[in-house]
Amino acid sequence: MYSFANDYSEGAHPDILEALCKTNLEQLPGYGVDHYCQQASDLIANACGKYHPTVYFLAGGTQTNAVVISSMLRPYQGVICASTAHIAVHEAGAIEWTGHKVLPLPSTEGKISAPSVQSYLESFFDDPTHEHMVWPGMVYLSQPTEYGTLYSYSEMKSIYDVCRAFHIPLYIDGARLIYALESPANDISLEDMCELTDAFYIGGTKAGLLCGEAVVFPKKNTPAGFITMVKQKGAMMAKGRVLGIQFYSLFSGQLMHDIGKHGIDAAEKLKSVFHKHCIPFFLETPTNQQFVVLSRKQAARLSEQFVFERWEVLENDMCAYRFVTSWATDDEAIIALDRFLNTL
Amino acid sequence: MYSFANDYSEGAHPDILEALCKTNLEQLPGYGVDHYCQQASDLIANACGKYHPTVYFLAGGTQTNAVVISSMLRPYQGVICASTAHIAVHEAGAIEWTGHKVLPLPSTEGKISAPSVQSYLESFFDDPTHEHMVWPGMVYLSQPTEYGTLYSYSEMKSIYDVCRAFHIPLYIDGARLIYALESPANDISLEDMCELTDAFYIGGTKAGLLCGEAVVFPKKNTPAGFITMVKQKGAMMAKGRVLGIQFYSLFSGQLMHDIGKHGIDAAEKLKSVFHKHCIPFFLETPTNQQFVVLSRKQAARLSEQFVFERWEVLENDMCAYRFVTSWATDDEAIIALDRFLNTL
Amino acid sequence: MYSFANDYSEGAHPDILEALCKTNLEQLPGYGVDHYCQQASDLIANACGKYHPTVYFLAGGTQTNAVVISSMLRPYQGVICASTAHIAVHEAGAIEWTGHKVLPLPSTEGKISAPSVQSYLESFFDDPTHEHMVWPGMVYLSQPTEYGTLYSYSEMKSIYDVCRAFHIPLYIDGARLIYALESPANDISLEDMCELTDAFYIGGTKAGLLCGEAVVFPKKNTPAGFITMVKQKGAMMAKGRVLGIQFYSLFSGQLMHDIGKHGIDAAEKLKSVFHKHCIPFFLETPTNQQFVVLSRKQAARLSEQFVFERWEVLENDMCAYRFVTSWATDDEAIIALDRFLNTL
Amino acid sequence: MYSFANDYSEGAHPDILEALCKTNLEQLPGYGVDHYCQQASDLIANACGKYHPTVYFLAGGTQTNAVVISSMLRPYQGVICASTAHIAVHEAGAIEWTGHKVLPLPSTEGKISAPSVQSYLESFFDDPTHEHMVWPGMVYLSQPTEYGTLYSYSEMKSIYDVCRAFHIPLYIDGARLIYALESPANDISLEDMCELTDAFYIGGTKAGLLCGEAVVFPKKNTPAGFITMVKQKGAMMAKGRVLGIQFYSLFSGQLMHDIGKHGIDAAEKLKSVFHKHCIPFFLETPTNQQFVVLSRKQAARLSEQFVFERWEVLENDMCAYRFVTSWATDDEAIIALDRFLNTL
Repeated sequence: MYSFANDYSEGAHPDILEALCKTNLEQLPGYGVDHYCQQASDLIANACGKYHPTVYFLAGGTQTNAVVISSMLRPYQGVICASTAHIAVHEAGAIEWTGHKVLPLPSTEGKISAPSVQSYLESFFDDPTHEHMVWPGMVYLSQPTEYGTLYSYSEMKSIYDVCRAFHIPLYIDGARLIYALESPANDISLEDMCELTDAFYIGGTKAGLLCGEAVVFPKKNTPAGFITMVKQKGAMMAKGRVLGIQFYSLFSGQLMHDIGKHGIDAAEKLKSVFHKHCIPFFLETPTNQQFVVLSRKQAARLSEQFVFERWEVLENDMCAYRFVTSWATDDEAIIALDRFLNTL
Repeated sequence: MYSFANDYSEGAHPDILEALCKTNLEQLPGYGVDHYCQQASDLIANACGKYHPTVYFLAGGTQTNAVVISSMLRPYQGVICASTAHIAVHEAGAIEWTGHKVLPLPSTEGKISAPSVQSYLESFFDDPTHEHMVWPGMVYLSQPTEYGTLYSYSEMKSIYDVCRAFHIPLYIDGARLIYALESPANDISLEDMCELTDAFYIGGTKAGLLCGEAVVFPKKNTPAGFITMVKQKGAMMAKGRVLGIQFYSLFSGQLMHDIGKHGIDAAEKLKSVFHKHCIPFFLETPTNQQFVVLSRKQAARLSEQFVFERWEVLENDMCAYRFVTSWATDDEAIIALDRFLNTL
Repeated sequence: MYSFANDYSEGAHPDILEALCKTNLEQLPGYGVDHYCQQASDLIANACGKYHPTVYFLAGGTQTNAVVISSMLRPYQGVICASTAHIAVHEAGAIEWTGHKVLPLPSTEGKISAPSVQSYLESFFDDPTHEHMVWPGMVYLSQPTEYGTLYSYSEMKSIYDVCRAFHIPLYIDGARLIYALESPANDISLEDMCELTDAFYIGGTKAGLLCGEAVVFPKKNTPAGFITMVKQKGAMMAKGRVLGIQFYSLFSGQLMHDIGKHGIDAAEKLKSVFHKHCIPFFLETPTNQQFVVLSRKQAARLSEQFVFERWEVLENDMCAYRFVTSWATDDEAIIALDRFLNTL
Repeated sequence: MYSFANDYSEGAHPDILEALCKTNLEQLPGYGVDHYCQQASDLIANACGKYHPTVYFLAGGTQTNAVVISSMLRPYQGVICASTAHIAVHEAGAIEWTGHKVLPLPSTEGKISAPSVQSYLESFFDDPTHEHMVWPGMVYLSQPTEYGTLYSYSEMKSIYDVCRAFHIPLYIDGARLIYALESPANDISLEDMCELTDAFYIGGTKAGLLCGEAVVFPKKNTPAGFITMVKQKGAMMAKGRVLGIQFYSLFSGQLMHDIGKHGIDAAEKLKSVFHKHCIPFFLETPTNQQFVVLSRKQAARLSEQFVFERWEVLENDMCAYRFVTSWATDDEAIIALDRFLNTL
């Protein structure tokens, strides 16, 4: 069996695991104040060019979204996002649990647009009853989106400009940011992310770490009491070293680029294979998630040897299926898929 | 420098790290439904004798307390605990964040007693205004306590009897349970824990895992929707394997006993050293945390070579200091301490 | 100026105010345990025919929804409602503030249908990732809806049947229920409401009271600790008498019917006037809210003498406007409107 | 039966009820934007001398505390108060429900002192683990306290000075403020309240209104989105007029003074009667709550004709009982008590 189910099917990238092993018996203080956390922080800051962001390491993605969003909103505010956003669908109401409404906008291929955000904000403030409604207090985007698509620099800048005009922050969920950064289609660097957002996170879990996400506040704008809120929401690891060492390793040398590039290259090969076999795309993307259309029968056959997820039910017994590559995707898996598609 | 600061200064026990390394490239489903989680669950269930508990793996201790407590309480209820309980002091208000009041009772050496709990509950329900007050809806204990002390079987049973009489659950925070289980002074087995509680957790972080806690519902009493609440509070790891593999390893063979016993043996040696040098105890305990009284000057000298925590400020420039041992405590550290105390 | 802005523009119905005055100096216990609350409760129970519901009096509608919904849901559940539901739009996120997601379904004229609810529930439980999503844990309807429309007995029964099939409660927001009950188009009695729901409230504020809503649990199904949750959410009046006396008065004799009927009769007259002047309806309803289409210019002219609300912006400089009648609507206002429309 | 049970046993002061009656059929906008609310606001502002505070009218006291406190705290902060504070005991966990810990300090006769607050704050920030604890983010006092006692100008100023030194707000619960203002022992005017606090509320419910509390932000420091948070927590009345008209009436002419003075004068007479009969005081106070010590037998006899509350169980079958006077206390009740005590 070969798995294209997601980008967190394996443990850690071998280099990262090795770093954990090498440092294993070093005695370090807990809760993220060890020197590896500091060094990882510095490396990330360096990767952000002229910005000198503040960086925090949290244990997981749902937590990270909940902590960052609830620490940047006031109780009367909610968060604008795509209707397909992870926070709107697959985080079990984590944001509502913090007391804040999620305000979904219609989305296309996982994305929302600056005009749509602007129009929502204008309508809200024009509404004479808006004081009886949840105020939009932040915009949340995913880069890449849950559909593998990318915001361009100009798209993200337009949205950020709207945010600034309405004095609300822009926050980017970068669970798979590493794959965006290595996509040839991408024109937003980490430095640009600092320019265009008020906060974002660099996902570790999907980038070859056992766990961990790095929250970046680019403009000396860490919310007061942030550390305490991280602790309060259970997002602080006692062995903070686990996060520090892994991110230090990820940002040392070429590892981050290698990991991202491997995932993107594998995705390109995967796309070629689907094209070669004339498998229609539901959505062909520039990152590490690809969506193809298969009949249920085809899917059943394929799933004898491959793991992948059903994404959407279409008409005529057809469905959209998602295939994900990662740092760990083996050429062998893609070759096997090619071979198997011959028989389909 | 030798650290007695806590029991989470190192990474993972080498056997556990090895298990992570060996399984690293195996492709597994996420979110805790992999076979290692299942096997770890089974091993823990077996360790519980005649009980067949349900087991869940969560990422960290603060989360675990927040998830379990908020999933077992109704909105009008709070949780009774010792005034020194971790949830009352050092979890940054994580329980209040879920909407529930923490109801601290006066404690002695970290413990509360059945009569004190009973008296609180009786007074509450006798109070004609109790419908305007937070209802005590659960009792929380730590075993061992934050002060290293242990509840005996008979003490815990008395408290559990009170809980049953008032129809509220008893929940045990076992962040350091592994050290309780190996203490010669302990008379409560895992099977007894199942008998005497409605829920408890077996701490992994302080027992040689990188992270992770195992929640045990002993009586087919998992709250409805528990998995979703784990996800909602951000306590579910995407790479659930990280928890499954580590707990599987911990409960395989003798590892759990070895880890606990090493910590307890080290604590006994440490106590001997303090006794030998006539260092007075603030609290001498049967587990892996020891509290001694030193002058600030002595402490300053000691901290040139040893790491340990100030626990409480006492009179006459004296303070109580905590020394913690663990699976990782080296004899060399204790010998060095012995030698250094000669010079004090 | 004549106001058709809403059904809470005046103080209290004179009979209700008189009851408050008459009893004013009687010394009564606080917090809803006075004999008027008891008697009001009994009168409401009697009005529910063969059911013997439990009744609670709360201060306002937003609170009532928040208290009832949050007391009947578990933390992992949300509430299904129409996209136009009051809780989804105009309660400032009160439900999310209690930690629960609002799950809006597409609606027509303010209503959702049994098939739509059923399809949502089926899709949810069919979704293999549903444990990572907010569980639908209740259905919320308004009767009449925010658009003045009514659910028929058979429509409500179909929805209730779906709820029972999925073991989730049905809750009805009856802020304007009194006007539904007196509408000739209505075929759901209070007794039917008891049959077809798990909880509902009878609005007082829009029915001629200064304030107050009566929550009805028809099936001995009051959530445990309900009183304490009412207090906790600030929905309990210290002078509970204010609610008891008013509801006692409302349900004594014919007052409730008179109040409802006056509002409905006024609405019929209002509709006739609009028809006479060929003002097109955006939505003509069987209750006390009517929606007509006017050009902005017409609306501006009308608003020199009449108060009413813009409801929706339409095309070609036209808008939908809402006109509301109530127990207090004076024939004079309708005659004046008739006269004014001649000049438009 | 004569009731000394509390200061909310009757409806409204006749003048206030009359104001409600007179204005009853006036058509007014809802939600607190009517001209009575505006005028009441202006009158209160005028009563605050050189300050020009912003005033909001909320429905009840528990709500008011929850809304004000949660709107002024950040998620990582809690509120310091006396261990006997209403928010710590009798509001059913309303503050914790908003996610914030209540941080009780030991109190004497209902009061806490500036040194005690200062020492708590200093210890907190000295604690090296304070980032893992709930930050004290506000001080809450009651004036008068739940025990009828008063803070002097100098006491309140000292506490306010500590608050300012630590950059946290001081908030005063004035549920019975009207009785403090008329006490001969009081030296804090409304103007002083503006000087010495960041927010306070003037209780209406216990001052002869049917319901309602006036929140005062003295220093142009209304939290952003306050109105929306009032709505969100269900503390906004649809018929805002009910609050506006009553407070307008209360602050017109001498009514507020008359009401307060009547309560205080009645308390003085009550104290004389107890002194005359040598009934020992548990606490003799300068406001409208008096606490005496009676045997249970005496109390049982007295309760044949008088209503009053048991406050605390003392030794030797004695208890402390609370007797409350108000604007409505009749001389006849006090004469009857005098007469009855002769027979005790």
